[in-house]
Amino acid sequence: MPMTVKALQKEGPDKPFKVVEIERRDPRPDDVVIDIKAAGICHSDIHTIRNEWGQAHFPLAVGHEIAGVVEAVGSDVTKFAVGDRVGVGCLVNSCGECEQCRAGQEQNCLNGPVGTYNSADVDGTITQGGYSQKVVVNENFVCRIPDSLPLDVAAPLLCAGITTYSPLQTWNVGAGKKAAILGLGGLGHMGVQIAAAKGAEVTVLSRSTAKEALAKELGATRLLATSEPGFFRDHRGEFDFILNTISAPIDLRDYLGLLKPGGAMVLVGLPPEGLELHAGNLIGGRKALAGSNIGGIAQTQEMLNFCADHGFGARIEKIGVHDVDAAYNRVVAGDVRFRFVIDTSTFEDAVPAE
Amino acid sequence: MPMTVKALQKEGPDKPFKVVEIERRDPRPDDVVIDIKAAGICHSDIHTIRNEWGQAHFPLAVGHEIAGVVEAVGSDVTKFAVGDRVGVGCLVNSCGECEQCRAGQEQNCLNGPVGTYNSADVDGTITQGGYSQKVVVNENFVCRIPDSLPLDVAAPLLCAGITTYSPLQTWNVGAGKKAAILGLGGLGHMGVQIAAAKGAEVTVLSRSTAKEALAKELGATRLLATSEPGFFRDHRGEFDFILNTISAPIDLRDYLGLLKPGGAMVLVGLPPEGLELHAGNLIGGRKALAGSNIGGIAQTQEMLNFCADHGFGARIEKIGVHDVDAAYNRVVAGDVRFRFVIDTSTFEDAVPAE
Repeated sequence: MPMTVKALQKEGPDKPFKVVEIERRDPRPDDVVIDIKAAGICHSDIHTIRNEWGQAHFPLAVGHEIAGVVEAVGSDVTKFAVGDRVGVGCLVNSCGECEQCRAGQEQNCLNGPVGTYNSADVDGTITQGGYSQKVVVNENFVCRIPDSLPLDVAAPLLCAGITTYSPLQTWNVGAGKKAAILGLGGLGHMGVQIAAAKGAEVTVLSRSTAKEALAKELGATRLLATSEPGFFRDHRGEFDFILNTISAPIDLRDYLGLLKPGGAMVLVGLPPEGLELHAGNLIGGRKALAGSNIGGIAQTQEMLNFCADHGFGARIEKIGVHDVDAAYNRVVAGDVRFRFVIDTSTFEDAVPAE
Repeated sequence: MPMTVKALQKEGPDKPFKVVEIERRDPRPDDVVIDIKAAGICHSDIHTIRNEWGQAHFPLAVGHEIAGVVEAVGSDVTKFAVGDRVGVGCLVNSCGECEQCRAGQEQNCLNGPVGTYNSADVDGTITQGGYSQKVVVNENFVCRIPDSLPLDVAAPLLCAGITTYSPLQTWNVGAGKKAAILGLGGLGHMGVQIAAAKGAEVTVLSRSTAKEALAKELGATRLLATSEPGFFRDHRGEFDFILNTISAPIDLRDYLGLLKPGGAMVLVGLPPEGLELHAGNLIGGRKALAGSNIGGIAQTQEMLNFCADHGFGARIEKIGVHDVDAAYNRVVAGDVRFRFVIDTSTFEDAVPAE
């Protein structure tokens, strides 16, 4: 029999969040029931539920940075037991059989991965995300959160952590490399910590020097303000790698010029506008411009272990279930250091709407 | 005392080629004097000497696909002896000390590599290319041509060969990979042969099916016509790798859609127009768009050995020194299978202009 749990949903893009009751399915043999303790607020949640990407199914609960404790397991579950500390990111299922799934790239499943929210699940229902008390997830899409990582600072790792960790791994950013992280928000602050922990010399590129002290605290050796006159000329050819975490359009020609020969720039932010470049920006110095989208489940586990081993999680601001509308406005205004996390224990006293 | 040799020069972008006498320097201790036997005609020669790139120093001899025989060596030369079969590509010098040179990427020398023609040499003179009887080159920029490769079919490898070999190596295109070569001209026909020899399943992408038989003869399993209605939809997500050898602008959004998740497209053709894309074209499926410019000297040698081991060179049409103006027009019209090579023995009877 499905269980009834509280969740934060919107009925439409312009409606406020409401605490409601939703049903979570009875665990299938390979399912894990997770008692959610913390749910991070990702900018994608906002784009989705404000219907800025034009594909939202209402009523909808978002949230794909989920940390909690296993409350029950299906009969065939082998990887987890009741009481385990676990996390769920952007994916809750995939075909498991295609070339991409077999290569550990479930996020690129050729038969369509199932997203944690707003996605058609295998039974045809629309998945409901982590702004909720519980979630039921196939064990293959659940990661273990190391004991040394508090659940609240671990939650944002499930999206912001893997989104930045994966390209830093793919492009071998480590000791001896000069890495630039463009933007110091939810993604950027993870990128700085991970790149620094991997041994790279990290520079934060930001419009102003306002976040200089924060950047250094996170492990950057310096912050450079891109608005400085002559910036792109003065720092030409300096970096092996640039991770672009911002969603505003940038002039690629300028940024590709900051790369050394052989360097790469990876985009993880998704500006709605198009980007322009000249073939010569890539051919001269054989540079690469690439994109990266989260990461597979095995790599997500690897990232969680990496963060625990290096003793850091996300830097967060905790809020209650009634604070999410206000928090969204602050995220859009860039006014958060660096991730809001919903303390889901605040569902307890919330009275569900009819 | 400098030696006087015949060369084909132009006095200006709109002037015809003329056989003239030029001076080649006395060999320095580390120089090799090469008796040129064959000189390939690269599209860059045409762009340069027609001043389409706006940087030509006249009078000028172009040509950076040079094959010949060592005629004399300086006192400190250790790598070559008189009689050796050798080649020279796009580079004749670099600093040898910067990060790029030390990494075998002399073409990206941070202190500026010296190009084989139209480049300021270390003594300040403007380098004169391979449409000539002899050339004098530092031994570190000379490659050995394996005995099994005739000099005329080896000449184009020094630019067209390395330009396509290098990205195919960098991006690990080999057995189990589906590679597309976009364009079947001088570069493309080398790309097909090299990718096929490396074990990849090669598809040629061309505007029409006119070159289908040629493509298969070179080792492609098929040729697909990009002008077919629905082409970009029907072949979505098929390729691990696309090598774009054409210099006309293309719609990157279409071509990036042909890549599998994790795939890469490398540009070696240089359209003067800008290119547009959307970050989502790269982020969805974590794809890469990269550029590549020739390759370093060690890799050029590796490529020559690879071609010899696999028993192929360029497919060429041999011409004499008086045929170059006409050949240029045919190259621009795409009317060559696949590379013109100047038989430099035809200099012998040519009477130099005053």
